[in-house]
Amino acid sequence: MNGDPVNIIGYDPVGAWEHNAGSVEEILRYRNPAGITWIDMNRLDNGLISELAKTFRIHPLTVEDILDTKQRPKAEEFDDYLFITFKAIHQSEDGPIFEQISIVLKEDTVLTFQERPGDNFDGIRKRIRDNAGRIRRLGADYLAYALMDAVVDEYFFVLDALGDEIENFEDRAADDSDTNFIPDIQKTKQKLFILRKSIWPLRDSVSHIIHSESNVLRSELEPFFKDLHDHVLQAAETVENYRELVAGVMEVNLSAVSNGMNKIMKVLTIISTLFIPLTFIVGVYGMNFEIMPELHFPYGYPAVMGIMLLVAAGMLIFFKRRRWI
Amino acid sequence: MNGDPVNIIGYDPVGAWEHNAGSVEEILRYRNPAGITWIDMNRLDNGLISELAKTFRIHPLTVEDILDTKQRPKAEEFDDYLFITFKAIHQSEDGPIFEQISIVLKEDTVLTFQERPGDNFDGIRKRIRDNAGRIRRLGADYLAYALMDAVVDEYFFVLDALGDEIENFEDRAADDSDTNFIPDIQKTKQKLFILRKSIWPLRDSVSHIIHSESNVLRSELEPFFKDLHDHVLQAAETVENYRELVAGVMEVNLSAVSNGMNKIMKVLTIISTLFIPLTFIVGVYGMNFEIMPELHFPYGYPAVMGIMLLVAAGMLIFFKRRRWI
Amino acid sequence: MNGDPVNIIGYDPVGAWEHNAGSVEEILRYRNPAGITWIDMNRLDNGLISELAKTFRIHPLTVEDILDTKQRPKAEEFDDYLFITFKAIHQSEDGPIFEQISIVLKEDTVLTFQERPGDNFDGIRKRIRDNAGRIRRLGADYLAYALMDAVVDEYFFVLDALGDEIENFEDRAADDSDTNFIPDIQKTKQKLFILRKSIWPLRDSVSHIIHSESNVLRSELEPFFKDLHDHVLQAAETVENYRELVAGVMEVNLSAVSNGMNKIMKVLTIISTLFIPLTFIVGVYGMNFEIMPELHFPYGYPAVMGIMLLVAAGMLIFFKRRRWI
Amino acid sequence: MNGDPVNIIGYDPVGAWEHNAGSVEEILRYRNPAGITWIDMNRLDNGLISELAKTFRIHPLTVEDILDTKQRPKAEEFDDYLFITFKAIHQSEDGPIFEQISIVLKEDTVLTFQERPGDNFDGIRKRIRDNAGRIRRLGADYLAYALMDAVVDEYFFVLDALGDEIENFEDRAADDSDTNFIPDIQKTKQKLFILRKSIWPLRDSVSHIIHSESNVLRSELEPFFKDLHDHVLQAAETVENYRELVAGVMEVNLSAVSNGMNKIMKVLTIISTLFIPLTFIVGVYGMNFEIMPELHFPYGYPAVMGIMLLVAAGMLIFFKRRRWI
Amino acid sequence: MNGDPVNIIGYDPVGAWEHNAGSVEEILRYRNPAGITWIDMNRLDNGLISELAKTFRIHPLTVEDILDTKQRPKAEEFDDYLFITFKAIHQSEDGPIFEQISIVLKEDTVLTFQERPGDNFDGIRKRIRDNAGRIRRLGADYLAYALMDAVVDEYFFVLDALGDEIENFEDRAADDSDTNFIPDIQKTKQKLFILRKSIWPLRDSVSHIIHSESNVLRSELEPFFKDLHDHVLQAAETVENYRELVAGVMEVNLSAVSNGMNKIMKVLTIISTLFIPLTFIVGVYGMNFEIMPELHFPYGYPAVMGIMLLVAAGMLIFFKRRRWI
Repeated sequence: MNGDPVNIIGYDPVGAWEHNAGSVEEILRYRNPAGITWIDMNRLDNGLISELAKTFRIHPLTVEDILDTKQRPKAEEFDDYLFITFKAIHQSEDGPIFEQISIVLKEDTVLTFQERPGDNFDGIRKRIRDNAGRIRRLGADYLAYALMDAVVDEYFFVLDALGDEIENFEDRAADDSDTNFIPDIQKTKQKLFILRKSIWPLRDSVSHIIHSESNVLRSELEPFFKDLHDHVLQAAETVENYRELVAGVMEVNLSAVSNGMNKIMKVLTIISTLFIPLTFIVGVYGMNFEIMPELHFPYGYPAVMGIMLLVAAGMLIFFKRRRWI
Repeated sequence: MNGDPVNIIGYDPVGAWEHNAGSVEEILRYRNPAGITWIDMNRLDNGLISELAKTFRIHPLTVEDILDTKQRPKAEEFDDYLFITFKAIHQSEDGPIFEQISIVLKEDTVLTFQERPGDNFDGIRKRIRDNAGRIRRLGADYLAYALMDAVVDEYFFVLDALGDEIENFEDRAADDSDTNFIPDIQKTKQKLFILRKSIWPLRDSVSHIIHSESNVLRSELEPFFKDLHDHVLQAAETVENYRELVAGVMEVNLSAVSNGMNKIMKVLTIISTLFIPLTFIVGVYGMNFEIMPELHFPYGYPAVMGIMLLVAAGMLIFFKRRRWI
Repeated sequence: MNGDPVNIIGYDPVGAWEHNAGSVEEILRYRNPAGITWIDMNRLDNGLISELAKTFRIHPLTVEDILDTKQRPKAEEFDDYLFITFKAIHQSEDGPIFEQISIVLKEDTVLTFQERPGDNFDGIRKRIRDNAGRIRRLGADYLAYALMDAVVDEYFFVLDALGDEIENFEDRAADDSDTNFIPDIQKTKQKLFILRKSIWPLRDSVSHIIHSESNVLRSELEPFFKDLHDHVLQAAETVENYRELVAGVMEVNLSAVSNGMNKIMKVLTIISTLFIPLTFIVGVYGMNFEIMPELHFPYGYPAVMGIMLLVAAGMLIFFKRRRWI
Repeated sequence: MNGDPVNIIGYDPVGAWEHNAGSVEEILRYRNPAGITWIDMNRLDNGLISELAKTFRIHPLTVEDILDTKQRPKAEEFDDYLFITFKAIHQSEDGPIFEQISIVLKEDTVLTFQERPGDNFDGIRKRIRDNAGRIRRLGADYLAYALMDAVVDEYFFVLDALGDEIENFEDRAADDSDTNFIPDIQKTKQKLFILRKSIWPLRDSVSHIIHSESNVLRSELEPFFKDLHDHVLQAAETVENYRELVAGVMEVNLSAVSNGMNKIMKVLTIISTLFIPLTFIVGVYGMNFEIMPELHFPYGYPAVMGIMLLVAAGMLIFFKRRRWI
Repeated sequence: MNGDPVNIIGYDPVGAWEHNAGSVEEILRYRNPAGITWIDMNRLDNGLISELAKTFRIHPLTVEDILDTKQRPKAEEFDDYLFITFKAIHQSEDGPIFEQISIVLKEDTVLTFQERPGDNFDGIRKRIRDNAGRIRRLGADYLAYALMDAVVDEYFFVLDALGDEIENFEDRAADDSDTNFIPDIQKTKQKLFILRKSIWPLRDSVSHIIHSESNVLRSELEPFFKDLHDHVLQAAETVENYRELVAGVMEVNLSAVSNGMNKIMKVLTIISTLFIPLTFIVGVYGMNFEIMPELHFPYGYPAVMGIMLLVAAGMLIFFKRRRWI
């Protein structure tokens, strides 16, 4: 699949064959006139896409949408095809990576356009080759469903990884000296935000497909797309769930930081209020007045020490009563 | 009900019988051809469910939904049956436990699928046996309603337990030294959040059933499902109520912590500002200058003590005027 | 009205009569076959309600709803009657008290069910007796409207009392030492919350009545129910208004507390930073070094005093420039 | 217009005449049977309104709505008239003042009811007298539109005044010692809140008029009411805009107060941590131990002074590195 | 284009010509009777617009909307034209500058009204002259689409500049001594808010055009306007994205400021609690009591110094255990 950008699979209930192609002529040569043809392009080759568009009568705006990888997920009906574009989300070490997948679903042909080689579609290729499940018996619309389903299934891997990340924050939240907590969790929030941007519009797209009257979609497939809709909804709800979790974790951290501050203030206050009056007293008897009778009392020194002990004890009782210690 | 995973109850206005079965053959043998048959499976036995699906013509996607216990609550119409899946919520010591209940409602048969043995349906079994109320006189759709109603009724037990938990927080909120308050209440918030996730979609499902045109539902049952809808709505509103209560309790706690901090700061400030100037004064007369006339005044010492008393009194009046003491 | 739980009023444009009854037989005896009959039960007597239900063909679910005083406000159409249940709100010293009122509106009969004796309906009874306004000339549906209107009118008394309560908080908000402010205002918020729960669903119920096609409601009454709807809406908006007011008052209090804290900190800082350097200086000349030339200068003491004055003045200028004093 | 509460203007494309009247007979005498009659009452005279209601067949509920000045803005269709009630907002020194305006639009008659003499309608009276614009050529519905437009135009004066008020807050927000800021801005928020309450429902009312099928409204007027709708929408959005502005200004103020606090704390910390160790050192050499060798060193005093200088310098470097000074 | 306010371009698939005009007569002279005419006015000349309105039968309310530059973006259908008004956003050094663009789309004529000379339409003029793309082959509705598309494309330049601005704030957020952060970011928030006000209603306008049944719009253009709708949606979502980013950045800053404060408090507390007890001890031995045996112990001085060392060490261990140092 490396040299040639296009992988073609033709199949029908009886058999399946697979070829790689680099030009429109090759593609057309390997097309399956009787059964279903799946044309998968694993990079966004401007020229080849334009040629394909002419051959398969794809609207120029669709071509623009395929090439613009910042496109919002959407489903659009055209005269003789259905256009669906959405995001695959791959888990990487640096967080989720997005790849735009575009599907052009025609009567008996499915064209898919990916940004990069390597995809989630190998399982489906295998099912076609092995005639596993119902894929070979059903039409091009089922293939489109299966491709979307495979992409949506990968969402949950990415979401699980994020879930672990958030759980990790739950452990860190109680540590009030972790000054990186907020910046780190903001990065996670940002990831959630981008995920939401990819997942939410897909919900509407699938719903649009369900209610579509396009003749490339047979009504038997409605339960499948409804199921897909449920999966997308579940992914979207998981994202919302995580956002709420993150908000809760941030509140716990805020409370931990505030409690840590409170403890520090209490210690400062206790030590200060304990010693400031005592220091004043010893200061008094450090004065150099000529006439200070107490200084000459035989028990002046221990008496003052005793008084200071009493003051300190009184303070401690006061703190105790206020439940500071 | 322990050995065999399936419990079958056949009934009609005249009589009712009950059997346990372990295979589809047994199930079919005990089926009630004239009246209503309720087939209840108390664990998710993959193989048996597949066989049942074939026998009762249940769509493969329905089977997938029954087996996927992370399914969102939903109601879906198929050609000759209505599929409903939702969560039972059981109260345990560690908080609410969720169990997915799936109902397949056919013309004269109800199939229910539970994750675990032990359920809320014993009351309904007893009503069928004893011919109590209208259950034996009404159809399979009424049985489905009664089963859902039994599950929804249990929601309120769980909600009451949560209500007590929140009331407990109301008592704790005023204690500004309770540093576990926020982490603990976050756990309760999390429980509420999960409850909401189970209850809110059920609202839409029941509403969907009410407006369904499925021929397995007779219009006489509309008032019953409307009543069920009201109950679900009430449970959903109670959850919202609790969320608002929790938010209020957190605000009270925040205010208590902030007020506690304020009091500590006031004490520190009063003690500090009272003694710092006095300590300065005694420091002055602790200096060792050769020529300090005051030190030799006969009433120097009591005069300074008097001045300090005046300063302290002035400070206290200042604090009093600022309403700090 | 005390001994017998039921009060029956029969009326038509010509006349009106009134009786108390304790059993269904009595009720039926006093019924007005030609005109309108209003059967008002002032406690929820389980047995009597069941008998009435049979006599007036009321659905078992309606009976359940009448007896369940935690019912959400709702309006429901049945074959030959309209069922409306909602909350009366009475003002008491401890805040609003709720009472569930249920109305069963039939062609020529209105049944009302209250939780407790004593109600807002005496005015309507008087209007019937005195043939005041249009009440005797219009049908049972107008009576139902008049009863609902009387209950909704009382909402505004309760709301006015709450408005005074909130105004009181506006005065208290500026006092930063009022540590009960937040717990107290939370109680008011809680009251508002419960009020909203009673008033909001009533809005939908009245709207449901307006759009109802039930044959117990004549189209001439639409303007009246629309007017009622406006009143309920106004009550609901007042609640929202109060919630916003409470939020604003809480912000003012938060700001007052924070400003109070700021002032305390400023005083502490000013006193501390003023005296700490001075105390250091007098400490220096309290040292006992054998050789400290300054101590022997003739003007050493006044010079040090002067220097300290200058330091203090410098500090004060610094504070002034920072606008702290 | 002072003595008599009612001002009548009759007009048609050919001419216009104007009278003041105090009774229904007078009003009827001056009515324009061929053209349009505008009956404007500048106070809510209970008796006169009742008589007018009878003459012009106005529903009793409409009369109630005209007299209840706490009415929400609304538009309601009746058999042969359209009833519109909404708020005029006048700018005064103490903030916006509200006046309820009610319009009863009939085939060829417009009745307007104001709370107080003095209004925004003088411009329209002049346009009728001078036959300016299209007003004399179009019907009663255009007059109703023109009246509403005049009132809505005044909204923008009030909003501009509020805009200036908010701009003033933007200048005050940065002053962290302005303790009146939050209470003052809350008053402005409150004004915005009341404005919203008057403007938002008007949006729905005008939209209701646009979609109304009433025969007192000709379809040619749709663009005019759509334009009015746009104006109301713009006023409503300006209110939202201001609310967001106020929220932003409050955040700036919060940040300024918090920054001010931070600066104070820094100064306190720097002064304290600078002098506390030094004060300790001078305290050490103020002790009266018999045997303290340092006291007798010839350079003891300057050495200690030097050490203290080093300590102070070290502290300052530490502060510098932490970017506190 | 400078002297004359109006630029006229006539074109058809065969050719294109361009003129500047200053009066309606000139405009009419250069009109293209067979093909498409684009009349572009680059300032809001009251008189000329009125004359044009008469010539092209434009409704007086449309003229008002063109002249009122504070108009909300909107699309409105009239009998024989479609009126669209929206905002062009130009990037300037002081932030985004807004310019109202109004389009009157008739069967074969497009009139555009701009506030100022200089625009985003030069590219389109060039495409018409050079017969590039499909512009000359398609009708007036395509020209209107192309003009709107050119304006919307510029939104993304402005949004990119704002994105850079926000990224800059991300770097500044961690600096807790940056007291201008909040006021500066509020200005950016304000810009986002104004952008949203311009972009969001355009979404509805384009959606209104898509669903319009106006006969000046051919159905072939639907995909183009849908694409435009997607672009506007994307711009709107980018604004929302930025708002969320700004909120996140503000939270990071808040946390940084709070952490900075915490560190300062910790240093103050550590220094104070370390030295306050030591200062008390040296104060004790600075007292001048006649009888203080310790003062005469040979090792009194080093013993006290040792005790103080132990106290300090104990304190440091305490701080270490609390994880303050």
